[in-house]
Amino acid sequence: MAEETTTTAPPTLTVDVAALTSVLDGKYADMRATVRELLPAYASVLEDAETMTSDEFRERVREVVLEIAATGAPGVGFPEEYGGGGDIGASIAAFETLAYGDLSVLVKFGVQFGLFGGAILQLGTKRHHDAYLADIISGKLFGCFAMTETGHGSNVQALGTIATYDPATSEFVITTSTHDAGKDYIGNAAKHAEVAAVFAQLEVAGEGQGVHAFVVPLRDKSGKVLPGIRIEDDGHKMGLNGVDNGRIWFDGVRVPREALLNQFADVTEDGTYVSEIESSGRRFFTMLGTLVQGRVSVGGAAVSAAKVALTIAVRYGLQRRQFETGTEDPGTEQLLLDYGLHQRRLFPRLARTYALHFAQEVLASRLHDVFSGITTDEESRRLLESRAAGTKALATWLATDVIQESREACGGAGYLSVNRFAALKADTDVFMTFEGDNHVLLQLVGKGLLTDYASDFSDLDQLGMVKFVASVAVETVLERTRVHKLLQQIRDALPDRDDADTDSGLLDPSYHLAMFRFREEHRIGGVARRLKRGVDSGMNPGEVFSRVQDHVISTARAHVERLVLEAFVEKIETLEEGDNKLALNLLCDLYALSSIEADAAWFMEHGRLTTQRSKQITREIGDLCRRVRPIAGDLVDSFAVPAELLRAPALIGGER
Amino acid sequence: MAEETTTTAPPTLTVDVAALTSVLDGKYADMRATVRELLPAYASVLEDAETMTSDEFRERVREVVLEIAATGAPGVGFPEEYGGGGDIGASIAAFETLAYGDLSVLVKFGVQFGLFGGAILQLGTKRHHDAYLADIISGKLFGCFAMTETGHGSNVQALGTIATYDPATSEFVITTSTHDAGKDYIGNAAKHAEVAAVFAQLEVAGEGQGVHAFVVPLRDKSGKVLPGIRIEDDGHKMGLNGVDNGRIWFDGVRVPREALLNQFADVTEDGTYVSEIESSGRRFFTMLGTLVQGRVSVGGAAVSAAKVALTIAVRYGLQRRQFETGTEDPGTEQLLLDYGLHQRRLFPRLARTYALHFAQEVLASRLHDVFSGITTDEESRRLLESRAAGTKALATWLATDVIQESREACGGAGYLSVNRFAALKADTDVFMTFEGDNHVLLQLVGKGLLTDYASDFSDLDQLGMVKFVASVAVETVLERTRVHKLLQQIRDALPDRDDADTDSGLLDPSYHLAMFRFREEHRIGGVARRLKRGVDSGMNPGEVFSRVQDHVISTARAHVERLVLEAFVEKIETLEEGDNKLALNLLCDLYALSSIEADAAWFMEHGRLTTQRSKQITREIGDLCRRVRPIAGDLVDSFAVPAELLRAPALIGGER
Repeated sequence: MAEETTTTAPPTLTVDVAALTSVLDGKYADMRATVRELLPAYASVLEDAETMTSDEFRERVREVVLEIAATGAPGVGFPEEYGGGGDIGASIAAFETLAYGDLSVLVKFGVQFGLFGGAILQLGTKRHHDAYLADIISGKLFGCFAMTETGHGSNVQALGTIATYDPATSEFVITTSTHDAGKDYIGNAAKHAEVAAVFAQLEVAGEGQGVHAFVVPLRDKSGKVLPGIRIEDDGHKMGLNGVDNGRIWFDGVRVPREALLNQFADVTEDGTYVSEIESSGRRFFTMLGTLVQGRVSVGGAAVSAAKVALTIAVRYGLQRRQFETGTEDPGTEQLLLDYGLHQRRLFPRLARTYALHFAQEVLASRLHDVFSGITTDEESRRLLESRAAGTKALATWLATDVIQESREACGGAGYLSVNRFAALKADTDVFMTFEGDNHVLLQLVGKGLLTDYASDFSDLDQLGMVKFVASVAVETVLERTRVHKLLQQIRDALPDRDDADTDSGLLDPSYHLAMFRFREEHRIGGVARRLKRGVDSGMNPGEVFSRVQDHVISTARAHVERLVLEAFVEKIETLEEGDNKLALNLLCDLYALSSIEADAAWFMEHGRLTTQRSKQITREIGDLCRRVRPIAGDLVDSFAVPAELLRAPALIGGER
Repeated sequence: MAEETTTTAPPTLTVDVAALTSVLDGKYADMRATVRELLPAYASVLEDAETMTSDEFRERVREVVLEIAATGAPGVGFPEEYGGGGDIGASIAAFETLAYGDLSVLVKFGVQFGLFGGAILQLGTKRHHDAYLADIISGKLFGCFAMTETGHGSNVQALGTIATYDPATSEFVITTSTHDAGKDYIGNAAKHAEVAAVFAQLEVAGEGQGVHAFVVPLRDKSGKVLPGIRIEDDGHKMGLNGVDNGRIWFDGVRVPREALLNQFADVTEDGTYVSEIESSGRRFFTMLGTLVQGRVSVGGAAVSAAKVALTIAVRYGLQRRQFETGTEDPGTEQLLLDYGLHQRRLFPRLARTYALHFAQEVLASRLHDVFSGITTDEESRRLLESRAAGTKALATWLATDVIQESREACGGAGYLSVNRFAALKADTDVFMTFEGDNHVLLQLVGKGLLTDYASDFSDLDQLGMVKFVASVAVETVLERTRVHKLLQQIRDALPDRDDADTDSGLLDPSYHLAMFRFREEHRIGGVARRLKRGVDSGMNPGEVFSRVQDHVISTARAHVERLVLEAFVEKIETLEEGDNKLALNLLCDLYALSSIEADAAWFMEHGRLTTQRSKQITREIGDLCRRVRPIAGDLVDSFAVPAELLRAPALIGGER
C-alpha cells in the first residue's frame, strides 16, 4: 500500500476524443468515415440475426451485401479498369470499419469480394479478369472459395480434389477422390454461389503438379446445382448463420482449359504443363501468398470486434454501481470501474487492443505497398506474409479474450443478445480457425524466423525446417535473425541484476523493447538448440518437432509481440506532444508491462527479471490502471463505434 | 531433448474403463446410471435448440422437463412426505448427469425444482410445504425464483422491491420501487411461471427488516398475468433459449400474511416482526445459506459440460490426421493427438477436469451431510458455503476454458453446431454469473479466510472485513487459519533452495500439497498485511479494498485450489493398487504441476521455486502429457457420456 501512496499522483489527462479518433483512423479516415455513415442503416441486421430463421437471415444478409456493393465500396481494392478504386489500403480500412456491424454481413462480403474476387484477381489472368471481375464487384455474380476439405484444412498441399487434364477435349476433369476430400465449410456454397474457385491437385499427362485453382460453375441462373456436383448444407453454426456454408463434391465435372487460374502456371492445349516457378512447393506458396489479404482483413476485423466489446463493457462499468464502499456519498454504491479488479480485467485488454490496432495499421500499409507494387523485393513479400500470419493470430485471440472478459464484466446483462456480446462471441470464434488456424500460422512464423526466410523457405515443411535448423550451428541461426543485430542495444537497455530491484526505467519504452527483443532472440536460440539436440540424439524429426512445437509457437508469439510493441512505440513517436500522446504512452506502458508480467516466469527463469522487479511490475500495472481510469470512457469513445451499433440500451450512457 | 530421452519411459498403463467410471460415479452410481439411460430419448432436444424458434423451443423444453418430472427424478432431493426421495446427494448426482444433455432442459429443471422448489422448501414452513411441494415436484405448478433485479444482482441486500405489511388486511403489499428494481433474468418468468418466490425488503410498521421471500402468484391458470404485475420478456440470449427469462415489476400487489416464507422470521397478525436471529445481516445470510444447493448444482453441471467437450475433442484428436511427419507409415499423416502442442492444450485440462470432479464429489457429500442433518455444527455449514462458492467459481471457469480450447482443437468442425461446442459454449457461459458472480463468490471465500469464519462473518461486508482485518495483528489472522497449523509440515515437504535444482520429488503429492498450502498461507498473510498498511496509511477502507481486491481473489483461488488438490489426493489414496490408480495419479500430478506452472512467477517471487526447478516442472509436464497420450481415449470414455448425446457424427469414433 505504502508504495502506492508515497508517490505523487500524476495529473489526470484530458483526452481530445475527436483528435484521438483521427490518430486511430490514420491515412484512411475518409473511407472509415464513409463506412461509419453507412452502417447505422444496417443496425437492424444485428436484431435480424436473433429473430429470423437461418434461411431468412441468409437472404437478408445477401441483400445487405448487394446493397453495400451498390455503393461501390467493395470495389475499392480492385483495379480501376474493372470499376475498382485501386486502393488496397483503403479496402482494408473499409473492411475493418464494416466489422463494427453484423459479422455475417462482413464475412459474406469477405467471401465474395476478398476470397472469391481475390482468387480471380490474384491467381487469374486477363481472360478471367475480363470475364468475371466487373460482375463480382457489382455482386451480379456470387462465388465461393473452395479450398478447405473435410479431411484437409491446414495441410492444403494434401488436398484430395483432383483436376485431370484431358487433351482430347482440352478440358479439366474435376473429381473428389474420397468422401473426406469434399470441400467443406465453404461460405456461399450452400445457397448463393453460382461459381467456385476450386483448389485441386492438377494432373497433366499422368503427372501431379500440385494444387492449382480452377473456375468451376456450380449452379445455373435459376440456382439449380449443375450435373456432377453435389452440395450439402453445413447446417447451423455457432455463429455467422447469415453465411451459407456448405460442402461440395465433384464427380467428373468438366471445365474448359481456360478455367485454370493461370497466373503462375498453365497447361498448353496439347497438355504440357508450364510454369516460371520450378519448385512445386514454392509455386504453391507463391499462389497462397497472393491471398494474404484475407488474413490481414480477418485480423483487422477481430480488432474492431474487440473495440465494440470494450466500448460496451467500459461504458457499463461507468454506469453500473455495486455495493457501498464509502468512497461515494452515503447511499450511493461504487461504480464498477472504480474497483481495482474491474480495472485490472479491462484496462490491460484495452491497452492491448490499442497496441494491436497500430500493429494492424503497419501490416495493412505493408500489404498496400507490396500489392500496389510500391515495394517489390521478394523479402518484403515474405516478411509481409509472416507478419500477416502472426498479427492475424494475435488479433483473433485478442478478440476472443476481450469479448469474453467484457461479457463477464457486464454480468447477467452481458448474456442478453441485445447487448451484443452473444453475437460478437459466437461470430468471431471461427476467426481463430479460418484464414489459417492460429497455431498453424504461428508455426509458419516460427519456421520463417528459424530459417531467416531463406530462399527455400516456402519449400520447407515442418520436417524440412527441423532438418535445416539441425544442420547449421545455433550461432548461425541466431546471427541471421534481425533481433540479433540489436543485441548490444538490448544489453544496454536492460538493467544489471544488481540495480534491478529499483523501479527505475520501468516506464521506459527502450526497456520494454529490450525485454521483448531479448525474449525473442533467446527463444529462437532455445528452439534451435532443442531441435539440434533432438536430431543429434537420433530421434525421428517428426517426433523432435512434436516435442519442440510449443517452443516454436512461443518463439513466434514473442516475435509478433515485439513487432506489435515496435509499431505502438513508433506510432507514438510521430505524434505531437500533448495529453493524447501521454494517454497513448500510458496505454503503451500498460501493454508492455502486462505482457512482460504474463511471461514473468520465463523472464525470471532466464535471468532477465529479479523477483523484486517482477513484483514492482505488478504494482506498476495497478498504478497505470488507476491512471487510465479517469480517461477510460474517452479511450473507448475514440474508437468511434456508431452509437446505433452498440445497441445495449441499458448498458451505455451514464457518467464518463 | 536429451533430458527426456535419457530417462526410461514408464510402461504404458491399461485403463479399465468400466472400473474407472465406477470410481467417478461413486456413491450414486445407480442414480447416474438411471439418468444416463433416460437421456438418449432426449438427444433430439440438442437439435431442436438449433432448428426451432425460441417460442417453440421453450415449449419443447417445458415438455421435456415435465416428462422427466413424471419419472420422479426431480423429487429425489425433496422430503419423503411430499413424494420426494429424501436424498440430497442423489439429487445432485442426477443433476450433474442431466448436464450431459441439453442445458436449457437442465436450467429449467434447476429453476423449477432447485431454485423455486428449494426456496419453498428451505425458506418456507409446513404451510407452504403442504400447499406447494407436491405440485412443484410433479410439475403441476411452475414457479420462478425472483431475486435478482436489473439494478442489483450481486448486492442482494440492496434490492429495491418493497413488501410492506398492512395490518388492516393482514396482507403484504409488494411494490417495485424504481424501474431498475424490476426483477430481471428470472427463469420461467416470461412464460411459464404461475407463482414466484419474490425477494423483497420487508417493512413492518415503518421499519425495514431486510430482505425476505414471499410467494406471489403471477398468472392465472389460463396464463394471464395478474393485475398489478407487469412482465417483459428478456428476449434472445447468448444461450439457454429454451428457458423463458423475463422481468417482473410489481405495483401494489397484495398477498396474504401467510405468503411470507417464514422459516427464519415472521410477522404476527397484529404487525409484529419476530425472528430468532437478531442481526438482520446474519438472518439474511442464513436464508441465503439454505440456497447453497444451487451453487453446488451449477458447479457440478459445469464439470459435466467440460467432460462432454473433452470427450469430443480427444476423440477427434484420435481420428483426425494432419501433415506427414515421418512418425507414421509413408503417406499417412500424423494424428492430432500425437502433436506435443495438442497434448499440452488438452491434457492438463483433462487432468483439471478430473480434479474438479473429485472436489465436487466432496462438496456434494458435505452438502448432503449438512442438509440431511448428519452434520449439524455451525462451522460445517459455513465451511460448506465457502467451499460451494469457491468450487462453483473454479468449476464454471474450467468449463468455459475447457469448452473453448476443445472447440479450437477441433478446428472448423468445432464451429458446426452439430458438434455440440456451439451450444456448450453459449449455454454454459452464464454459469460464471448466475448463482453468484464468480469474482464476488471468491471475495466471499476470501472474506471467510481472512476472518476465519468468525461468528460475525455473515454480518461483515467488504468494509467490515477490511476494518476487522486491519484491527488485528497479521499473526493473529494467520494463526487462525487452518493452513497455518500445517506450516511445519509444509516446510518439511518443500526442498531447500540448495537442492531445489534436482528434479527430486516433483511427482510427490506431499510436495504438491506443500506448495499449494504454502501459497495459500502466504497469500493470506500478504492480503492481511496490505489491508493493515492501507488502513494505517489513512486511506478510505473502500479504496483499500479496491486496491487489494485482486489479492483477495487470488488468495481465495489459492485456497480452493488447495481443497481441490486435497480432494484428488485423498480420493486416490482410497483406491486399490492397479493401473487405474496409477492413471489417476498421473492426472493428479499433471493437475498439480500445471497449476504450479501457471503460478510459477509467484512461487519464484516468493522464494519457493528456483528458476531451474521451474524449468524442470515445465519439462515434467511435457513428459506427463506423453504418458497420458496412450490412455487419453480411455480417460474420456470413462466419463461415460452417452454416445447419443455426443452427436459430432464426423468427430467421434476412430482409433483410441
